Amino acid sequence: MMTDAASPLFQRAAIIGLGLMGGSLGLALRATGAAAHVTGYDAGPEVAGVALGAGAVDAAAPSIAACVASADLVVLAAPVLAMRAILAEAAPALAPGALVTDLGSTKAAVMAWAAAALPRSARFIGGHPMAGSERSGIAAASAALFQGAVWCLTPGPETDEVALDRLRALVRRLGARPLEIEPAQHDAAVARISHLPLVAAAALVLAASSGAEWDLSGTLAASGFRDTTRVASGSPVMAHDICLTNAAPLVSALDDYIATLADLRARIAAGDGAVQSAFAAARATRDGWLRKHDTRR
Amino acid sequence: MMTDAASPLFQRAAIIGLGLMGGSLGLALRATGAAAHVTGYDAGPEVAGVALGAGAVDAAAPSIAACVASADLVVLAAPVLAMRAILAEAAPALAPGALVTDLGSTKAAVMAWAAAALPRSARFIGGHPMAGSERSGIAAASAALFQGAVWCLTPGPETDEVALDRLRALVRRLGARPLEIEPAQHDAAVARISHLPLVAAAALVLAASSGAEWDLSGTLAASGFRDTTRVASGSPVMAHDICLTNAAPLVSALDDYIATLADLRARIAAGDGAVQSAFAAARATRDGWLRKHDTRR
Repeated sequence: MMTDAASPLFQRAAIIGLGLMGGSLGLALRATGAAAHVTGYDAGPEVAGVALGAGAVDAAAPSIAACVASADLVVLAAPVLAMRAILAEAAPALAPGALVTDLGSTKAAVMAWAAAALPRSARFIGGHPMAGSERSGIAAASAALFQGAVWCLTPGPETDEVALDRLRALVRRLGARPLEIEPAQHDAAVARISHLPLVAAAALVLAASSGAEWDLSGTLAASGFRDTTRVASGSPVMAHDICLTNAAPLVSALDDYIATLADLRARIAAGDGAVQSAFAAARATRDGWLRKHDTRR
Repeated sequence: MMTDAASPLFQRAAIIGLGLMGGSLGLALRATGAAAHVTGYDAGPEVAGVALGAGAVDAAAPSIAACVASADLVVLAAPVLAMRAILAEAAPALAPGALVTDLGSTKAAVMAWAAAALPRSARFIGGHPMAGSERSGIAAASAALFQGAVWCLTPGPETDEVALDRLRALVRRLGARPLEIEPAQHDAAVARISHLPLVAAAALVLAASSGAEWDLSGTLAASGFRDTTRVASGSPVMAHDICLTNAAPLVSALDDYIATLADLRARIAAGDGAVQSAFAAARATRDGWLRKHDTRR
């Protein structure tokens, strides 16, 4: 089916969770006209009103069931561990043929919960836009959040091509690039480049501030410390849910990281000038990555 | 002595090393009129010409001795381990009463080398502006680099107050904030908030890219990976010199970091929901630091 660039891809979108991700999605759906109408629900009683005022939704629903009732697109934008209960609550209220997706940080757990909770008529396709901010909540939401981002899509074994095509078109309309991927493959990959940096940044704040000289060293800390630890200012609930739903890949990545650090530590303690080649290798790898991938997203 | 805001504080400044730091200093000295004339020298044969073309110096000198010969301000802006030989080469050529300082990342080693190399008539005061960039070289230099930055000053036991006052005035003229500090105290503090983040970022790049899935995970990596690893794109020589001249404080900081990571790793492996409080503590500490100190420097 061909669609005009400005014509809606969905008539009624429902967004469950109106924080940074859900709020940004609402703003983007409305800015691009991808959905003719957007209804939002948030567990925080005042959040939906703020989202309404910010133009992230056309209407605020009083419950998950009311939010999804007549939607042809349902997007779960809550922390991963909240998804199971949301899926259970939404399932009986879904319209036949509704397309259901999510924006969660890990995919294997959500896919399993969706398979258990949803009737076959509701098509669930996991999703994860590779975009974010250390700021959380509706106040940080932006219609531009997804511009240029890779947006992972994890179809299930029963996903039909029509539903997948509709979701791909939606992702493109929002300025992002759809990438189909297996849930386990997704979780292993993001463990290394998203979840490991998150744990590394939090540990860096804790270790840097643990010394008696934190008052002084905090005064001296500048842009290097600020950027290296930026993601540590993100939501602790999101971080918790990532750790609990992606433990094995994250532990594997952490083991590699700790071993790399221990090796560098031993070289530094020994006054080994060969540390320079490790720094040179890291620079070459990062600069190569930047050249190939970075789009300031 | 009162000086007009636009009057030069020094008649002839000499900058040894015209990379990111030395080049930025030259631009700032000339933009603020803090020095009436700036001569530069760089070991790279083409660098001084580029600096001249970029307006970072008024003149390029063919040798260290020629650069410092008639200067009343000499600034060493080379990687730390190069300072010893530079000091030895500059010492016999220094004008009587010249004020000598540096921009190096660590201070105890430089202070010891300066004390051994310089005649008493040359006043050496260590310096370290807490500002930088992952980009290196004269092409990345900026007159605004030092704006709002804390600029550490480490006087020696024989430093006189007049020389220190002149250097404080210079730092303020460049838009930075002078902070007097003992060399060992400086090195311990920056180990935690500058050198540890540098090693952490390089190790993160190495660990994240070590897996078989780097091709995929590199495609998914976004702003979190980019910022957490930014400083890993800095000069490997600078990193090497930091590791070799600040080994003990850096090893101590790395031990705390590895222990913190190992603790988080164990909690994640055990599915311990208490990880959330660690992330919450890291966020509170970082956000408190941002409120108190960050000036987007």
